[in-house]
Amino acid sequence: MPAPVAPPASPSPSSPMITVSDAGEAALLARIRTHVPASRSDVLVGIGDDAAVLEPPRGALLVQTTDTLIDRVHVDRRFMSARDIGRRAVAVNVSDLAAMGARPSWIVLALTLPGDLSVDDFDALIRGVVDEARLHGADLVGGNLSAAPGAALALDVTATGAVRPRRVLRRDTARAGDALWVTGHIGAAAAGLQMLRADAAATGPCVDRYRVPTPRLREAWGLAAARAARAAIDVSDGLAASVRQLAAASGLGARIAAASLPIEPGARAWFEQHGVDAVTASLATSDDYELLFAAPPKFSRRLEAVQRHTGTPFTRIGELTRDGGCVLAGSDGEVPLPAGFEHLRT
Amino acid sequence: MPAPVAPPASPSPSSPMITVSDAGEAALLARIRTHVPASRSDVLVGIGDDAAVLEPPRGALLVQTTDTLIDRVHVDRRFMSARDIGRRAVAVNVSDLAAMGARPSWIVLALTLPGDLSVDDFDALIRGVVDEARLHGADLVGGNLSAAPGAALALDVTATGAVRPRRVLRRDTARAGDALWVTGHIGAAAAGLQMLRADAAATGPCVDRYRVPTPRLREAWGLAAARAARAAIDVSDGLAASVRQLAAASGLGARIAAASLPIEPGARAWFEQHGVDAVTASLATSDDYELLFAAPPKFSRRLEAVQRHTGTPFTRIGELTRDGGCVLAGSDGEVPLPAGFEHLRT
Repeated sequence: MPAPVAPPASPSPSSPMITVSDAGEAALLARIRTHVPASRSDVLVGIGDDAAVLEPPRGALLVQTTDTLIDRVHVDRRFMSARDIGRRAVAVNVSDLAAMGARPSWIVLALTLPGDLSVDDFDALIRGVVDEARLHGADLVGGNLSAAPGAALALDVTATGAVRPRRVLRRDTARAGDALWVTGHIGAAAAGLQMLRADAAATGPCVDRYRVPTPRLREAWGLAAARAARAAIDVSDGLAASVRQLAAASGLGARIAAASLPIEPGARAWFEQHGVDAVTASLATSDDYELLFAAPPKFSRRLEAVQRHTGTPFTRIGELTRDGGCVLAGSDGEVPLPAGFEHLRT
Repeated sequence: MPAPVAPPASPSPSSPMITVSDAGEAALLARIRTHVPASRSDVLVGIGDDAAVLEPPRGALLVQTTDTLIDRVHVDRRFMSARDIGRRAVAVNVSDLAAMGARPSWIVLALTLPGDLSVDDFDALIRGVVDEARLHGADLVGGNLSAAPGAALALDVTATGAVRPRRVLRRDTARAGDALWVTGHIGAAAAGLQMLRADAAATGPCVDRYRVPTPRLREAWGLAAARAARAAIDVSDGLAASVRQLAAASGLGARIAAASLPIEPGARAWFEQHGVDAVTASLATSDDYELLFAAPPKFSRRLEAVQRHTGTPFTRIGELTRDGGCVLAGSDGEVPLPAGFEHLRT
């Protein structure tokens, strides 16, 4: 057996640790089943057969997405509990469903386990997945377990949801002159991660935001139902990257006003305390999982209604422009919008 | 950058090798899009937005499964091309859809890349995924790219298909007295893997069967349409494990006749040549992806019709018994059925 990659997040000090490798697949599958009581009536066959059998929604379209969390790349067992990692794996996928205006229905989970993961952590991981899914109305309906000697813990979730045809929020349907809005605050997750890296026991709102993001489901449903947004995307690679992606998909440019950015106060304080420009850091760093959306100025009354209904602040941060190029307008004039987080640059 | 885990399967000797890490995510996503032309009319939004938007089938149920291939665990880049790994990742999932009687519709792919994978191999991998999906009528509609320093190549595929409500093949619906049948031949994939481990340049039918299994879609559809099978499962963990799983799900036992097993002739020769009992090896080893199904003896005329139509041999290998326990009946009497391949025992 390979040496542990990282100390288990919650070792049981009094009893000898049982690992997933000791337990074997059959026992782990049996443990999963105890965490997954039947819930949704559209799950006709759940975990336990070759595949799940699901009843598609009537009069709705399906929305499907997949996203992976790998230990030491997207999460870190040194300062995140197994339960939070499980919750986060679902939350980031649900955020993608939210960005399309969809309601989550079904989750499948492909887990890659280091052989030395404790069965206690395995249970906590699965409970995190199931609880977060249920929080958003979805059931865990299938999965796969793999183990590889020396492998990093990896969770790949595929989430499927439903949306009425006229309520789909795409990213390529914005028009020049549309205002750009963002929900909630930005920069919190990046600051939270830095706080945890500095002190694994750090706490506070930024740390919470990093650990388990809140998918903006109600906000997206409200925007879609009120026909208050013309296009939307979730802010998972950083606000700058999301602005670029939405603008490019719609064949447009964008102008962002630096002074308007809703930077989380705790994050701003943290960045400034560490000599980092809060605007640049909040634009360029990832993991906020807010919603960026485009709406023509005349939709402002509808936006206010959705905002009141959800209780989440919406902030106008700029607009989409006909001429290509994404710029940041500050007190020193316009500069190119910083690059977002680029994956794979290892 | 970490040292290469394995030499790339198909290096381009004349040009300097460009890695996925050099290219970055945006360039890789653009490459994927060139391999994925629009095909199915039920894919309303494909790759490129936060999530895919799909039109569910009318009057049919959805079937969904996920399965992961990890280099050096389920596949091996030392003797499999990137294209074959891509094809296999889809084929093993399609086999699970087949075992439920479903037709494949949509594939999503979560890829974990070692940073030193060549872009040529990346392209071949994606082409393998797309070509195998299309071979079975499915489109690649979404995905995710991750990279981790020193990570093993991993492909997680989630496949979704459609099946009419009365044609679902489950594993828990067999009855005592049903005969057990298997499609095609067993043992080929395990022998093929051993041949490749002995000689990475080995060829022949066993090697082909290991590299890219043939999901038994037409056979399953035929069985479901003719109502010729009462329960079914795919043989992915070895025939013995599949017999145990089908019997246990149906609350039954099983008796398998050793002499009846349709062992691939080339596999039998290989096992005997290496002093291995061909029956035990063929029962216990995995990766055959044949279909194991249960049918009452009175269904034999229907079975013959399906067999004639598909051209695939069906072999009766035993029956399901009321009293629990799975046994293998041979010339020396009855012994417990060997254990199948158990995952996670690293």
